[in-house]
Amino acid sequence: MQVPFDREEVQALIHRHNLDVAKASIREMNQLVNALETNFATKFIRMEFGIPGLKAAEVARRADARALLEGDVAHRYAPFEGIPELKQAASQFAKAYMYLDIPPHCIVPTVGSMHGCYIAMGLAGHCVPSRQNILFLDPGFPVNKLQAKSWELGTVSLDLKDFRGDALAAEVDRLCQTHAIGGCLWSSPNNPSWVVLTESELKALAEVLTKNQVIAIEDMAYFGMDFRHDYSVPFQAPFQPTIARYTDQVFIVFSSSKLFSYAGQRCGLTFIPPTFATQAYPHLQQRFYKPQMLDAFIHGGIYPTTAGVPQGPQWGLTALLEATVRGDLNPFQEVREYERRAHLMKKAFLDHGFYLVYDSDQGMPLADGFYFTFAYPEMTGAELVQELLHFGISAITLDVTGSHYTQGLRACVSLTDTSQIETLRHRLQCFQQTHPRRKP
Amino acid sequence: MQVPFDREEVQALIHRHNLDVAKASIREMNQLVNALETNFATKFIRMEFGIPGLKAAEVARRADARALLEGDVAHRYAPFEGIPELKQAASQFAKAYMYLDIPPHCIVPTVGSMHGCYIAMGLAGHCVPSRQNILFLDPGFPVNKLQAKSWELGTVSLDLKDFRGDALAAEVDRLCQTHAIGGCLWSSPNNPSWVVLTESELKALAEVLTKNQVIAIEDMAYFGMDFRHDYSVPFQAPFQPTIARYTDQVFIVFSSSKLFSYAGQRCGLTFIPPTFATQAYPHLQQRFYKPQMLDAFIHGGIYPTTAGVPQGPQWGLTALLEATVRGDLNPFQEVREYERRAHLMKKAFLDHGFYLVYDSDQGMPLADGFYFTFAYPEMTGAELVQELLHFGISAITLDVTGSHYTQGLRACVSLTDTSQIETLRHRLQCFQQTHPRRKP
Repeated sequence: MQVPFDREEVQALIHRHNLDVAKASIREMNQLVNALETNFATKFIRMEFGIPGLKAAEVARRADARALLEGDVAHRYAPFEGIPELKQAASQFAKAYMYLDIPPHCIVPTVGSMHGCYIAMGLAGHCVPSRQNILFLDPGFPVNKLQAKSWELGTVSLDLKDFRGDALAAEVDRLCQTHAIGGCLWSSPNNPSWVVLTESELKALAEVLTKNQVIAIEDMAYFGMDFRHDYSVPFQAPFQPTIARYTDQVFIVFSSSKLFSYAGQRCGLTFIPPTFATQAYPHLQQRFYKPQMLDAFIHGGIYPTTAGVPQGPQWGLTALLEATVRGDLNPFQEVREYERRAHLMKKAFLDHGFYLVYDSDQGMPLADGFYFTFAYPEMTGAELVQELLHFGISAITLDVTGSHYTQGLRACVSLTDTSQIETLRHRLQCFQQTHPRRKP
Repeated sequence: MQVPFDREEVQALIHRHNLDVAKASIREMNQLVNALETNFATKFIRMEFGIPGLKAAEVARRADARALLEGDVAHRYAPFEGIPELKQAASQFAKAYMYLDIPPHCIVPTVGSMHGCYIAMGLAGHCVPSRQNILFLDPGFPVNKLQAKSWELGTVSLDLKDFRGDALAAEVDRLCQTHAIGGCLWSSPNNPSWVVLTESELKALAEVLTKNQVIAIEDMAYFGMDFRHDYSVPFQAPFQPTIARYTDQVFIVFSSSKLFSYAGQRCGLTFIPPTFATQAYPHLQQRFYKPQMLDAFIHGGIYPTTAGVPQGPQWGLTALLEATVRGDLNPFQEVREYERRAHLMKKAFLDHGFYLVYDSDQGMPLADGFYFTFAYPEMTGAELVQELLHFGISAITLDVTGSHYTQGLRACVSLTDTSQIETLRHRLQCFQQTHPRRKP
């Protein structure tokens, strides 16, 4: 099918989905694009959904299946705190790739890292009654804001495009002092700007968070995916940067969806440094059943929501962590496929009149990774996301990511393999011809 | 090892676990009993934990494993609303065993039925701001109260020993009018009393709940397990009683842990009648992202907590539901093993001076099932639970189940197979000799 598609047909479909595409969530956009693909019998360049484009390693799928078929797990409730084998493997993994000493009992499996974020945010926002706001280092994953709403917590936001280096900690300090902040959440590499906080930024951030007694929630959804560094050699520097090197008051939330492409089985991990694990907040007792942080996470967080994580997936993740530390698997190398895709896709956009919104990483060139952000001259993000649909390209607006730069869109590279780059370039060329502009 | 065990050693172990056994949660008791078993090198008669004592059917484990090994599911996020195959099978199951028409899109998989209860309670307690209390028809599953706390909802309780038949609806009506109730939760068969609400009670209950605009949360953890009736023939009466026959304002929360012994894979279902699914509550928008009940359940409940249910377990449950409706599997017959165990265990207690706390079902003899409740003359529940530990028998107090009758304990029959009945009888005999009493 020729692009652009018929405008009235596209409008009719958007109308039928009852959607404001500028505000559409990832999943809503996903459903709309499915409908457009069917209607126009055309495969879109799908950049709206941060789904892994690689397959889960066989070692995970086999271990998961073996536990079910040969093990004695399907009829037994999993321990809330996770199976000992997974906790042990995760502790080794933390040492190998973050160089942190976190004992097994301080690591809790969750139903996806989302579940870990949910509980961590609930705890950070309710441990001191006078500090019920969460500070987001934006842009970010839209659902985290929804999680804050679910806990009835307020949200405060700064934009990483405006505050990096020394300015970052200074602004966080200012906001903590003026906005009753209980927790501070970010992902690094950042979804969607792909900027990465440096060790010195993390150190300064740790200092102001500690000073203001604010709990850090470090979302490691993209663990090891700053491809400018090789984090793949276990027990050997460089290590994945983490604020836990500079403060104990942190929940490190780890996802197996991106590094291990194990998204479908929903098994994440939350690491809680031992001194933080035993820290008591009397106010937690009321809502989380226990005053100590680790107890509250397990008995007041995991227990009432899901009563643990399905057993098979825990065995799958155990196998992945063990094989990686042992050197039988190198997921860090495998996910470099996303680096290649990002490189080609960014170039396609830049060659056709687009520009990057988050365009530098403290003066360094931005790494190529899972996401990038882009805009087009003289168009708002809302106009752009809608217009691109006519050219068979889907994304979400930066608006829904909490970015303060609403002219742009977020692109996820994962589903576009290199064989589709020519199609992408052709569609962008058509777009540019339809909308001739000079770069600003 | 001879019972009673050495009193000082038992005390020391309780002390080391820092436990008040009268208030201990199921899992805390579980850990203590593990330690006692190790210390005294003696297998306990373990009645504290409602874990299935049967194995999950092979059809489930094979389907789950096959999806992982042959399917394309491990790396793909599951749809939040559940995989279509499971929703379809669940709709058929609802028709076959409850004789309800619930279309697939109104059935949502959850991470265990606990997850369904958690979300349902959050919705029922927050859809109208002036009705933030949950009414529990007690006794019940202790964690449900913890879920209410987690949502910062108040709890109101009536005891099913005091109100049955016409009196039940009358008391519920009175409480709804005086206590700002948003939702009403119960399980039937009831954990732990094993009383079962009749069709006429459900009908009257539906009327007063509807009149007071209170949402029902019907916990079907023990679906089909009132063994006085044969519910096992699909599409043929008698059907599992449900309040959904008399009101649409209900979340039916289904567990695969007991009927299917699939507890380890944490996959439950919530059924939402279609007219309730589209009912809009403006206040839900704020905390659950969407005003309509089904949308709010999925986008404001499932999404922020776990972003869906692991894929493998969904395929496992799909296979179980399909095989059952097709007649290849009869889980209703298999779980009758619990009926046999309950019969023998209750008799053992009654023969040795104990009595049942919840001793009749509206004048009918109580069914034999997964739980029963018992007490001993002139002992409180706290004294009894602690004393029985010296005789190698573990349970939890009725106090933690919200029962108003705190002299008793809850016994779960699932882990005691018939080969252990003689051991149980011997230990109860020793207990009785140590504590000679007359029945009251």
